[in-house]
Amino acid sequence: MRKKNNINLFVCFAWLLLSFCPVIVQAQDHPKLILTKAGIEQIKAELGKVSLFDASLKRLKTEVDAEIEFGIHTPIPKDYSGGYTHARHKTNFIILQKAGVLFQILDDEKYAIYIKDMLFQYEAMYKNLPVHPKTRSYARGKLFWQCLNDSNWLVYVSQAYDCIYDWLSKKERKKLEKNLFRPFADFISIENPQFYNRVHNHSTWGNAAVGMIGLVMNDDELIQRALYGINDVKIDAMAKDNDGGFIQTDGKAGFLANLDEPFSPDGYYTEGPYYQRYAMYPFLIFAEGLHNAKPELNIFGYKDSVLLKSVNALVNLSDADGEFFPINDGQKGMSYYSRELVTAVDIAYHYGGHNPQLLSIVENQGRVLLDDSGLAVSLGIRDGKAKPFLKKSINLSDGSDGKQGGVGILRYGNEDMTLVFKYAAQGLSHGHYDKLSYSLYEKGDEILQDYGLARFVNIEQKGGGNYLKENKTWAKQTIAHNTLVQNEKSNFQGKYEIGSKHHSDLYLFDASKAEIQVVSAKETNAYPGTEMHRTMALIMQEGFEKPFMLDILKVTSDGTNQYDLPFYFVGQVIKTNFDYEVPKTLEPLGEDNGYQHLWTEGCGNAIGENTKLSWMEKGRFYTLTSVTSKDDELRFVRIGANDPEFNLRRDAGFILRRKDTQNTTFVSVIESHGGYSPVSEFAIDSNSSISNLKIVYDEEKYTAIAIKDVDENEHILILSNTDASATSRHKSQINGKDYQWTGPYQYTKISK
Amino acid sequence: MRKKNNINLFVCFAWLLLSFCPVIVQAQDHPKLILTKAGIEQIKAELGKVSLFDASLKRLKTEVDAEIEFGIHTPIPKDYSGGYTHARHKTNFIILQKAGVLFQILDDEKYAIYIKDMLFQYEAMYKNLPVHPKTRSYARGKLFWQCLNDSNWLVYVSQAYDCIYDWLSKKERKKLEKNLFRPFADFISIENPQFYNRVHNHSTWGNAAVGMIGLVMNDDELIQRALYGINDVKIDAMAKDNDGGFIQTDGKAGFLANLDEPFSPDGYYTEGPYYQRYAMYPFLIFAEGLHNAKPELNIFGYKDSVLLKSVNALVNLSDADGEFFPINDGQKGMSYYSRELVTAVDIAYHYGGHNPQLLSIVENQGRVLLDDSGLAVSLGIRDGKAKPFLKKSINLSDGSDGKQGGVGILRYGNEDMTLVFKYAAQGLSHGHYDKLSYSLYEKGDEILQDYGLARFVNIEQKGGGNYLKENKTWAKQTIAHNTLVQNEKSNFQGKYEIGSKHHSDLYLFDASKAEIQVVSAKETNAYPGTEMHRTMALIMQEGFEKPFMLDILKVTSDGTNQYDLPFYFVGQVIKTNFDYEVPKTLEPLGEDNGYQHLWTEGCGNAIGENTKLSWMEKGRFYTLTSVTSKDDELRFVRIGANDPEFNLRRDAGFILRRKDTQNTTFVSVIESHGGYSPVSEFAIDSNSSISNLKIVYDEEKYTAIAIKDVDENEHILILSNTDASATSRHKSQINGKDYQWTGPYQYTKISK
Repeated sequence: MRKKNNINLFVCFAWLLLSFCPVIVQAQDHPKLILTKAGIEQIKAELGKVSLFDASLKRLKTEVDAEIEFGIHTPIPKDYSGGYTHARHKTNFIILQKAGVLFQILDDEKYAIYIKDMLFQYEAMYKNLPVHPKTRSYARGKLFWQCLNDSNWLVYVSQAYDCIYDWLSKKERKKLEKNLFRPFADFISIENPQFYNRVHNHSTWGNAAVGMIGLVMNDDELIQRALYGINDVKIDAMAKDNDGGFIQTDGKAGFLANLDEPFSPDGYYTEGPYYQRYAMYPFLIFAEGLHNAKPELNIFGYKDSVLLKSVNALVNLSDADGEFFPINDGQKGMSYYSRELVTAVDIAYHYGGHNPQLLSIVENQGRVLLDDSGLAVSLGIRDGKAKPFLKKSINLSDGSDGKQGGVGILRYGNEDMTLVFKYAAQGLSHGHYDKLSYSLYEKGDEILQDYGLARFVNIEQKGGGNYLKENKTWAKQTIAHNTLVQNEKSNFQGKYEIGSKHHSDLYLFDASKAEIQVVSAKETNAYPGTEMHRTMALIMQEGFEKPFMLDILKVTSDGTNQYDLPFYFVGQVIKTNFDYEVPKTLEPLGEDNGYQHLWTEGCGNAIGENTKLSWMEKGRFYTLTSVTSKDDELRFVRIGANDPEFNLRRDAGFILRRKDTQNTTFVSVIESHGGYSPVSEFAIDSNSSISNLKIVYDEEKYTAIAIKDVDENEHILILSNTDASATSRHKSQINGKDYQWTGPYQYTKISK
Repeated sequence: MRKKNNINLFVCFAWLLLSFCPVIVQAQDHPKLILTKAGIEQIKAELGKVSLFDASLKRLKTEVDAEIEFGIHTPIPKDYSGGYTHARHKTNFIILQKAGVLFQILDDEKYAIYIKDMLFQYEAMYKNLPVHPKTRSYARGKLFWQCLNDSNWLVYVSQAYDCIYDWLSKKERKKLEKNLFRPFADFISIENPQFYNRVHNHSTWGNAAVGMIGLVMNDDELIQRALYGINDVKIDAMAKDNDGGFIQTDGKAGFLANLDEPFSPDGYYTEGPYYQRYAMYPFLIFAEGLHNAKPELNIFGYKDSVLLKSVNALVNLSDADGEFFPINDGQKGMSYYSRELVTAVDIAYHYGGHNPQLLSIVENQGRVLLDDSGLAVSLGIRDGKAKPFLKKSINLSDGSDGKQGGVGILRYGNEDMTLVFKYAAQGLSHGHYDKLSYSLYEKGDEILQDYGLARFVNIEQKGGGNYLKENKTWAKQTIAHNTLVQNEKSNFQGKYEIGSKHHSDLYLFDASKAEIQVVSAKETNAYPGTEMHRTMALIMQEGFEKPFMLDILKVTSDGTNQYDLPFYFVGQVIKTNFDYEVPKTLEPLGEDNGYQHLWTEGCGNAIGENTKLSWMEKGRFYTLTSVTSKDDELRFVRIGANDPEFNLRRDAGFILRRKDTQNTTFVSVIESHGGYSPVSEFAIDSNSSISNLKIVYDEEKYTAIAIKDVDENEHILILSNTDASATSRHKSQINGKDYQWTGPYQYTKISK
């Protein structure tokens, strides 16, 4: 075998080489990026003794062997994502990286040959390759329609190259570097600064790609360019990317800037979990490479270990099934089972102090990286160190300084009920206009949903797999979310330029008591002249089977408005306590701002002081109880109007509309209760346990809500609206009764 | 303990009792109905040694103990199903039966006391109880709103009574029988002949109830009434039940008539699997009682063992998840996990020759009856006898003589693809007007759905848990199914009187070759003057990843009509090969016959000879390819118009409309292909593999379809339309090529 010969050569002529040939010596230092020589030795020593690692290796081998059998295909690029050439080149880079690992671990030269042959096919093609023929991207790639995917390619392929670096001849390396890797790195950086030189997940991929190939090639210029960006680039201040985000970034660029800016000190990534997941791979894999090749940077300690914290934040941004909350643009179903999270969790375990709870995530994932970190988690699991990952209530700040709002997650029990409350910043170009919105989960099921994005990622038939126009016209709009819409307009007029300047502010987060957990935030910029103060609580109360959610949304305005409060309930209507008309023909609810996508399926008015709506989903009953007056309009809506290509799901919604109103407070409770089995056909506890919900006090300083259950027990929540200090003492008379308490709120039973 | 005292008494004075006291001797023969003295001895001997039985016993004990703790509640009846009094009395009879079993097995008197106390509460109440206050039923009960539920009660409670019969004093028995059981049995039979004296699942419950209490009481009059019905009852010939079914049954009545009539020789029950499941319990539990107490009847051998065959038929009428196909009125989700099927499968195993495949169903169910049959299956599983239940393609005839059409099920692989083709009789009052309709499954998931019923069984908020009016206006109508609608009318004008007289006729069923399986039937009465001949095939062909479904629907009419062929695809539209307009406002598609419940969401025309529609569901792609002409109208529809209480699901449909046509042939293919994972974001094989579908010949004698795939391979299916003999020889020239074959069809590759 060629490699062994090389090693023999090395041993025999060591003294010669050491004296005359530093380049060749350096060559013998590979792999050094993700795999290391020492790591490989340890892996080989443990082979066959660590079941999870062995299983991953076996699966990988099966997959790569099948691809080698299938042959090498490097078609001339022509398709958008989802098309053949896109999918083929994507498969290629994934398989190349895996083949490199197999070569290193198994010492089987066929993998090296496969990589070499494919690399030289790319080398032959790349030399004269024009930019990709599809023109939709603001930064077209060569192998793919956008530089982003070209960067994906290089991040993976640089690992493969590292694995066969020593095995290749110097001449081969030179040819590949000169005709393929260096021009490739230059193309995605210098030739596309609008892509490369930003604070954005696209740029992170670009930075990592340039940096990783730089580390393998030992090209310091590329490494510096990766870490710090390109100097003195001028980009049009008004230029935008395909998602409508500004390209200009005030000179901040490079990998470190991308760590500084979008991550909050809590590890929350401002674009939201779906893109955080996407960015995790380049962040962590490049960090691992830097850790191995440039240990002096101490990259995992950077910004108070923000990379490691971000993995913890990301896992916490998932439901009980491990699926990420679709905050901002996020495709539902993406979860911690993704390859990016396999990488992230393994690395976070290995380089982040061996947190045993991460091992249970790895157990769920059922596969590991085939590197030092994958070996470490496999050994941890083999040795019985895994502990359950207990997701608790958590408040994650947004903004590089942690002062631009955030996301508050309240959880009860073992994720029996989870409230996700968003009071964050805009979230760059993938942000939605949904200040103070929320979604509610029972285990892994949505009770009130966040729509997510309008896109079918990589499904070519759906707009090339890219963002659909309904993403802008519907998914990003305020009315698409469980939050207040004023005068049928979106927050910040739906303008990114304005939204990017503002964020909501945390008022209160208190998860110290399991029975009543509260998060509260204020928003003053979404609708100028209007302040929204939303307080949400999960309350577990005696007499209730499960915790209920209480929502208090206090609106103060300097003018008279129409307010719409939507509830995107998931399931089928079971009962209402109000009458409504169903129209003979369905009309869109409005003209724009997302309203054009809603059909009005039913319309009525509140009959009394409480409006109730019950629905059923997956064998569970849910009830919304909302404080209303007879002037409140109630609408059943259905998503799907003006949707010429059936890009939108036909999901249900319910809107509480309050017209001609200046200041008002919306108060609602959501209960989950009982259950129904189509097998036993028993319906259990199919009715709400709340007999009355009432705003008993609502002034500038305090708001008080009384909740009476069907057994006539009554509780009161008093909220201080202007002083969230934990130590302030309050005193108030409500309904002729004196209340005194310390801290921002008081929840107590009213004695009869 | 009281029971032991009784036994001592019996032993001491045996000679005395034997001579003087036959009644008391007889008393010592209990239990004799479901449990037997010998069976109980065997169960006690095996206790603690048979894990499945022991686990079921433990679960039962926990459940009953909790109810005993909760106390006895026998409220005055007032609610419909789903309401408190209904649910309470239902729970009572289920718990009573279980408590009886526990008393027998565990010898713990607390269970006997619980039963006795509750029975005497019922006795005290029943004496003066009027008929139930709710008036909706054609046969009101006393404890429940309909005699049906009262019969349920007696079927279960007679078992409980049997278990404590010996333990009770003669005086106590006399009081219970005089004031409760005998009047109860008379009320549901003699006083309600319109309920009792029919061939109908309601009557089966009534018959079993009367017969079982008769067996326990050794009351031969009741036993005879159970087996043969009430003599000389006059019922208005036009009287109908609540479901619109005729009550008159030409004098056929009683348990044996209910075995003779609705069951076909294959064990198919004419109302469909949902009601078959419902009827299984009284059929089998009463049969078990008869087997034990009247072995001379040989009830399990009756009508060539139809009861045992029916269990096999029912299991075969389920999808890969064990859920029953919702043929006719059937609530989706009902499955062989139901308590009725636990009973049915255990009994069929024990009394039907110990079929080891049934044991794997029991393993799935995870619980067993606590009687001889439950012990038998538990022992079988313990001893490793279970084998997988392999559901194969099966043709189930309908009608007491097996000559009234049927249901053909084609399956490929391990239920990878399942076609359910209905060419049955009306199915009594629960029948739908859907001649020659079908549904298609991939494993347990619907590809093309049958809507099922419009009802939320036992959910009180939804019309008392009873049939909703949309069941008649939508679910039963022809347009609600995947079959042809002529001139926007339902089959038989939607009239039960007419539909009940007719059935479709099997033309061909051939599942002998896995690669091409065919079912074909004709219908000549649904639309007088029009013959429909529908042939459906599952074809596994080289070059295709999975089998596809081919549908050939040949329509011959004596006049010109409009034909609508709906496809109720489940999922989201991915791609079409035709243009369509989406309307600005949604209008109902029609005025009546179900059309009033459909919104038109999109409308276009076929562009060429093939119309293609692709959709995605649960990570799989599906494509419909249909032979069309430019005159064919294509409509996307959505269920939910004129649905004032949100009783209908907002499911999608696609309608192929052919206007002003006399004779025509609809030919379609449904493919399942590829897949998509939101975790990997890879889309695999998202396009159809069929490049052309063509009717190459279509005359009275033969119809030929050519199917060309994307690799240009072409196959032809030639169907003989008038001669289904397996031995007939055929000869035909198609496209200048001679074909010769034997049998009703020929499927072959066309050489290029």
